[in-house]
Amino acid sequence: MNDERDRDASGDRTVGKGGSNAMWGGRFAEGPSAVMAEINASIGFDKALWRQDIAASKAHMAMLGAQGIVSSGDAATIADGLDKVAAEYEADGVPEDWALEDIHMTTESRLAELIGPVAGRLHTGRSRNDQVATDFKLWVREAIEQMDGALAALQSALVQRAHEHAASIMPGFTHLQTAQPVTLGHHLLAYYEMLERDRSRFADARVRLNRSPLGSAALAGTGFPIDRNATAQALGFDGPTHNSLDAVSDRDFALDYLMAAAQCSLHLSRLAEEFVIWASQPFGFVRMPDTLSTGSSIMPQKKNPDAAELVRGHAGRIVGCATALMVTMKGLPLAYSKDMQDDKPPVFEAHGLLELSIAAMTGMVADSTFRTDRMRQAAELGYATATDLADWLVTQADIPFREAHHITGAAVRLAEERGVALDALPLADLQAIDKRIDDRVFDSLSVDASVAARSSYGGTAPQQVRLQTAHAADRLGITL
Amino acid sequence: MNDERDRDASGDRTVGKGGSNAMWGGRFAEGPSAVMAEINASIGFDKALWRQDIAASKAHMAMLGAQGIVSSGDAATIADGLDKVAAEYEADGVPEDWALEDIHMTTESRLAELIGPVAGRLHTGRSRNDQVATDFKLWVREAIEQMDGALAALQSALVQRAHEHAASIMPGFTHLQTAQPVTLGHHLLAYYEMLERDRSRFADARVRLNRSPLGSAALAGTGFPIDRNATAQALGFDGPTHNSLDAVSDRDFALDYLMAAAQCSLHLSRLAEEFVIWASQPFGFVRMPDTLSTGSSIMPQKKNPDAAELVRGHAGRIVGCATALMVTMKGLPLAYSKDMQDDKPPVFEAHGLLELSIAAMTGMVADSTFRTDRMRQAAELGYATATDLADWLVTQADIPFREAHHITGAAVRLAEERGVALDALPLADLQAIDKRIDDRVFDSLSVDASVAARSSYGGTAPQQVRLQTAHAADRLGITL
Amino acid sequence: MNDERDRDASGDRTVGKGGSNAMWGGRFAEGPSAVMAEINASIGFDKALWRQDIAASKAHMAMLGAQGIVSSGDAATIADGLDKVAAEYEADGVPEDWALEDIHMTTESRLAELIGPVAGRLHTGRSRNDQVATDFKLWVREAIEQMDGALAALQSALVQRAHEHAASIMPGFTHLQTAQPVTLGHHLLAYYEMLERDRSRFADARVRLNRSPLGSAALAGTGFPIDRNATAQALGFDGPTHNSLDAVSDRDFALDYLMAAAQCSLHLSRLAEEFVIWASQPFGFVRMPDTLSTGSSIMPQKKNPDAAELVRGHAGRIVGCATALMVTMKGLPLAYSKDMQDDKPPVFEAHGLLELSIAAMTGMVADSTFRTDRMRQAAELGYATATDLADWLVTQADIPFREAHHITGAAVRLAEERGVALDALPLADLQAIDKRIDDRVFDSLSVDASVAARSSYGGTAPQQVRLQTAHAADRLGITL
Amino acid sequence: MNDERDRDASGDRTVGKGGSNAMWGGRFAEGPSAVMAEINASIGFDKALWRQDIAASKAHMAMLGAQGIVSSGDAATIADGLDKVAAEYEADGVPEDWALEDIHMTTESRLAELIGPVAGRLHTGRSRNDQVATDFKLWVREAIEQMDGALAALQSALVQRAHEHAASIMPGFTHLQTAQPVTLGHHLLAYYEMLERDRSRFADARVRLNRSPLGSAALAGTGFPIDRNATAQALGFDGPTHNSLDAVSDRDFALDYLMAAAQCSLHLSRLAEEFVIWASQPFGFVRMPDTLSTGSSIMPQKKNPDAAELVRGHAGRIVGCATALMVTMKGLPLAYSKDMQDDKPPVFEAHGLLELSIAAMTGMVADSTFRTDRMRQAAELGYATATDLADWLVTQADIPFREAHHITGAAVRLAEERGVALDALPLADLQAIDKRIDDRVFDSLSVDASVAARSSYGGTAPQQVRLQTAHAADRLGITL
Repeated sequence: MNDERDRDASGDRTVGKGGSNAMWGGRFAEGPSAVMAEINASIGFDKALWRQDIAASKAHMAMLGAQGIVSSGDAATIADGLDKVAAEYEADGVPEDWALEDIHMTTESRLAELIGPVAGRLHTGRSRNDQVATDFKLWVREAIEQMDGALAALQSALVQRAHEHAASIMPGFTHLQTAQPVTLGHHLLAYYEMLERDRSRFADARVRLNRSPLGSAALAGTGFPIDRNATAQALGFDGPTHNSLDAVSDRDFALDYLMAAAQCSLHLSRLAEEFVIWASQPFGFVRMPDTLSTGSSIMPQKKNPDAAELVRGHAGRIVGCATALMVTMKGLPLAYSKDMQDDKPPVFEAHGLLELSIAAMTGMVADSTFRTDRMRQAAELGYATATDLADWLVTQADIPFREAHHITGAAVRLAEERGVALDALPLADLQAIDKRIDDRVFDSLSVDASVAARSSYGGTAPQQVRLQTAHAADRLGITL
Repeated sequence: MNDERDRDASGDRTVGKGGSNAMWGGRFAEGPSAVMAEINASIGFDKALWRQDIAASKAHMAMLGAQGIVSSGDAATIADGLDKVAAEYEADGVPEDWALEDIHMTTESRLAELIGPVAGRLHTGRSRNDQVATDFKLWVREAIEQMDGALAALQSALVQRAHEHAASIMPGFTHLQTAQPVTLGHHLLAYYEMLERDRSRFADARVRLNRSPLGSAALAGTGFPIDRNATAQALGFDGPTHNSLDAVSDRDFALDYLMAAAQCSLHLSRLAEEFVIWASQPFGFVRMPDTLSTGSSIMPQKKNPDAAELVRGHAGRIVGCATALMVTMKGLPLAYSKDMQDDKPPVFEAHGLLELSIAAMTGMVADSTFRTDRMRQAAELGYATATDLADWLVTQADIPFREAHHITGAAVRLAEERGVALDALPLADLQAIDKRIDDRVFDSLSVDASVAARSSYGGTAPQQVRLQTAHAADRLGITL
Repeated sequence: MNDERDRDASGDRTVGKGGSNAMWGGRFAEGPSAVMAEINASIGFDKALWRQDIAASKAHMAMLGAQGIVSSGDAATIADGLDKVAAEYEADGVPEDWALEDIHMTTESRLAELIGPVAGRLHTGRSRNDQVATDFKLWVREAIEQMDGALAALQSALVQRAHEHAASIMPGFTHLQTAQPVTLGHHLLAYYEMLERDRSRFADARVRLNRSPLGSAALAGTGFPIDRNATAQALGFDGPTHNSLDAVSDRDFALDYLMAAAQCSLHLSRLAEEFVIWASQPFGFVRMPDTLSTGSSIMPQKKNPDAAELVRGHAGRIVGCATALMVTMKGLPLAYSKDMQDDKPPVFEAHGLLELSIAAMTGMVADSTFRTDRMRQAAELGYATATDLADWLVTQADIPFREAHHITGAAVRLAEERGVALDALPLADLQAIDKRIDDRVFDSLSVDASVAARSSYGGTAPQQVRLQTAHAADRLGITL
Repeated sequence: MNDERDRDASGDRTVGKGGSNAMWGGRFAEGPSAVMAEINASIGFDKALWRQDIAASKAHMAMLGAQGIVSSGDAATIADGLDKVAAEYEADGVPEDWALEDIHMTTESRLAELIGPVAGRLHTGRSRNDQVATDFKLWVREAIEQMDGALAALQSALVQRAHEHAASIMPGFTHLQTAQPVTLGHHLLAYYEMLERDRSRFADARVRLNRSPLGSAALAGTGFPIDRNATAQALGFDGPTHNSLDAVSDRDFALDYLMAAAQCSLHLSRLAEEFVIWASQPFGFVRMPDTLSTGSSIMPQKKNPDAAELVRGHAGRIVGCATALMVTMKGLPLAYSKDMQDDKPPVFEAHGLLELSIAAMTGMVADSTFRTDRMRQAAELGYATATDLADWLVTQADIPFREAHHITGAAVRLAEERGVALDALPLADLQAIDKRIDDRVFDSLSVDASVAARSSYGGTAPQQVRLQTAHAADRLGITL
């Protein structure tokens, strides 16, 4: 039994020390013991690990039995007992008793009540230090898998809508200024790409975490003839960790998760920002689904994009979670320090916020109405094809670049004065600006012509968008 | 009724949209309405504001009555109803119904059940936007007051122990290297000073927040003839805010709180770090109270400083909370955006963590046993008075600075070879190094002489320490 | 001479250790000495403190002379020498020699070259630890004063424009949805209020920092009969710090500065966000000054709001600076640790970024053209006065709240169908919806009537705006 | 020419607007144009990209020539011109002229001076938006490669010292309390593992970034018949990016770099913390190399671990850099926004700090003297083998776990009273505590026996350490 923390200690955590701390007020009048019980207990949040704790204990027990470290009879008794505890948790939840500190002692204590002192053999050749590292890794691994599925669903929604709008015209912005026309499908696919990187980031994190700490014991390994490969394999790890000190003091896997989550949340916040701006009356590019916005019975035109705003706000909190764990881990000497108990709340919080954000964003993408008429109109009014005119002058009329720009400027000013789109200017007026312009130019000046022309790989042309949606659908296993 | 968000909307949050979102899996299979209900609801955390919400509503109602905007009969009915709701919350807690979104609608809905449609008059001339700003400010103001009390208690513990150890010698460290002897009392008082700044920071935050947003309505103020000074006064504010747009979009007060909390947590983390190092076997400067550490039944010499480590870890989370709200607020246009609903979780979390950290640290300071013998021994073995020898040579023997350093180096090397303290070297040996040394030098070489000499204002000399503890006790209103 | 760091050590920083570190490649092939010279040297950034270093040294020297610790002749020689060094720095800049590490040793070394060994007396009764704390506090104090002036200038610009536009109508947004009409002056004054809090935050920081660390020496104070009040007074401090250990290990003042800067940058980022959105073609609310945007010779209607975007981007970096110092200070034991050398780069960076951001924003506010016609049009089209109609029904026609909302919804839908503003609906059509409506209602339905009505204290009514601009102008000492 | 930003604009950045901004003071008296020149210019830092900018331009030019978009003569002229510019930069540095804004325009402007107007053809089919993304990716890719080499060097140092100290005994700590004896080699290898994860994180980032943005133009792709595969291949990318909007608005690669750097810096900060603690007089576990510490001529026993402290401090700044870019990117709509110009300073700063930190740490690991006598003594005095006694009682004497613990506690208390190690207690005394103890127990009580016993995979036993150093040496290609 290599546990370096004392499980007997809890008994003497008597509350109340009399008057010696009379200077304290409020909730802490009970004295330091009560404060300790509260600050020390992690059961309030680490109960979320109960499934992982049971699974790891069962794997450990099976190995102890197979290795002959514990008799096969005891091993069977303990395994049955763990199943009973699990069934209780499933049915009634995990009880929160601060005196039992954490999920490990809560489970072991209940196990002892159910099967007697033989329960104590479960802890042979392990410690809470390797146990919590194992449980938490298993939890994060599942969280990663959930994220991958949720992100694929959001990607699917994006790809569906992108396919639908492969040729829908909208203004492409830089600096939030209308720059060049793009297709809405192209715009949506930019987020597909971001999420593809997010998924690869989570996948990388999964590979990196997937070694089992179990059997590292308190910090130094153990003298019991355990088989770490067996427990690793039983729990789906690629093998055991290589250094026991590292195994119990490493929280890289939690940071990897948080950093992938933070980057993903930044991507979602960008899309959310666009929905908020697009849903404003002056833009009017999108009508959010009723189910993901709040309205007003007296202002029917008003639809508050609450879900998008909350997605954006959640990004702040997720970044805060990542920062928190970085600060906590900074400068900790080896091996286990109790500071590391503060690793779980940020991960649990970030996971819940991100999962909800992705779900909300999937709904917004899938169910929003894109007002393509308004988008096209904005693209046309924005003189977004001015660069196309300049390009035409350079390539078709062989006019030097600077001169072409000058001519274009004059044309746009004229259109602006008249309040019309560039391609609504009569040829005569264009020729009055420069006589080398001929009527072939109109092939370049419509927003449709502009996007069709940008057919370089990854460009905004509808054919390029359809090429990418086809690839994406293939990868996602969906039909367009 | 200026509320720009619709309280009717919740009715149509029907769960389940059929197969249109079949791509979603897991918990979100119910469709976007269910996601919206979850992401939108803040009742899970803002129920913590119920006392403030009731108080602000009562102040608002009294003003509406006094101004004749609501009849005195209706005003009385509503005030009674609010008392009833408060009594229910006190007895049974606040119910969490996502459909009612937040504490404001939960309360108003229950009020309507109790007193009927007249409840609707309560919302005249206000909006949830100014209401939540008011409630949250009131909450933060109370949190600040709690912090001030808790910090005063910790300061008192520090001053008591400092007074007790005004003349106890310990090594003063720079770079964690023994530099010069200091008194333990002096060391503890350094934290008194830090906490004094923390209290002033919280006090500054309190002054800055103390203007009432109530009556700013949704964003633009109201046309009802309300009296904002009256509600401000009733709620203990110094007056109303000056700009309604600012009033509903400002969260500076929450950031001020978080930043004061973060700085305070950094101070606590420094003291916690010292406790952890001092409690290590090689140092052995402190024996932590049993009530704030965990032990081991098989290693009685081992006492894990869990509480100190958790205080250090909590600093990471509190910094994360401050970061979170900074990120969330960045770049939000005026006025209210739903992102701002994410203001409360970081503040509530930071407050709980800091309150617990201060309580734990107060216990550690008050109840730890300082092993002054070990401290003195470390100061003596560290040749911490070498600078005193050099100073003596400069001032008493009129030896130039560089030469004095050279002589001192030789003396320390000799003492180190013999494994003795500097003042245990015989005069003859010192004179062999430099004959200008005479026996007056020994008055400077003991650690006691060294600390006594540093009597400049704010220095480590026991007299200076007692001067400061007297001032501090006076300010804290405690007796030493 | 209480300096606990060795100024002789630099001599043996010979570069190159031969083959023992052959495993290193690239720039570090020279071996650890070269790495140490680079990582240890702070002269690259702390040379920014030269004026403060000279000033503090002169104050210290004058005190040493007055106290008779140094002869008056030596004191005069040293004071003259410091003036010469300062004149050299002023003329030629501060030389960067890594071997001299920092500004303190650079100055002292040059002083010794100019006046000989007597220069060594300058360091009597102080250490680099209290010296750098003093210098840095003086620098931050000046930075705070600069900020106050810069913020007052930005406030002045806001107030001038607010006064000019006290009655200009724009849509007031919540959730970036048109909610109610507000006045542009009112909107701009919201930022006046934010900056007022920023100034008070900087002012609070100034009060808190304004105690002199000088004379705290390495960590423990000094045995020389120094007069800390004298140096504190000479340098404009309110008095000396009370605890020497705290004085050399405290960086609260730098954190206070950074946190005030971070909050201020968040306010600027909000205004910048609004400028970016307002400058977009669909909004078209503002035309940025040519001097603060970049344009395009071929798209004259396009004006990239670069300065606003950079202000928003800088907020990210300033928040990063604040985070950096929080992380660095976390968990540092007393007293001075070398980690604290990393305090200056974030402060210097944040200060430069913030100063530039405020200047850019002042230009944007002062010189932008607000397109009030577009703003008014957006307010009218957004049915922003729907709540005014509902309010009229409640207060003038005594219609219950819910029913009033229902009627209003019908009216807005009708106006929306016809594509007209609410007040463009004929009375007959309104009466067809509800016959209790009479022609007095039109007094409430115009955007002008709406803002005029919101005359509660701090509301958006032009009279309220003018009340606030008058107060602000008075406080700023400007004429409107 | 698809550049959506105007390169002509710089000409009219006239400084000074006369009295219109008289309210501004200080450095900004020159008016907004001067502020704009300063805030807008990135040449001060992006000149670091000059090699990448030249390389990308040459690849782009070669492609334009091969595709016939530019004549082969012009292509050759431009390629030669770029070589000349590069040679000038190499010899004289990159000139900083704010009017030329950035490295791209600085280079193109110089190119035009050297070869005339034909220089303008270089910009065909690209924009500064894709150009800067390409340059920056190339820079980060090289930074990753540098990091990989530097980390391998530090790993090599760790493995060499671990091999040397495979059997050196030290106390293993949890909570900084002596827990169980471990080997120093084992402890050092824990950091090998952390760095192995860091290298894999950088490697993952490299894979993810390695697609070329070049040819995405301003945001939408281009109509010129460019070959993006060709430029991608020429620059060592795995292929072109798939979406042009994403390509110019993506900064994931910079965040990936910063997050890998932040995690790496946290690992270094942990090792640095250990060096600082170990170098303290009470521990005395390590003597830092003179080259990486500063000493004191009067206190020869004092060696300030400056380099370790700076490594720890730098971790704070690197975390700040990561935070900065997260905040900056949050909520940015597509495509390019000028905020993104603030992406480079944090990356450049973090890279410099991390590179220096790794170099310093490599020197510390390679050249420190580990005082193994002090380490062994601390392990022995700490009763670190108490758990071994308990284990022996359980496994050899078949004593139930709880009883075994009780006996062990009694034995440790006895040894503590006598001030001796556990294995220095006579057998008779042990048998007086429990008669089932026999002399075989002494085989378990020495620290050597304890570490030898912990031979489970990844455990602290010397054989396990040697197994791991052999594997590591093999992977690193070094000889032990």
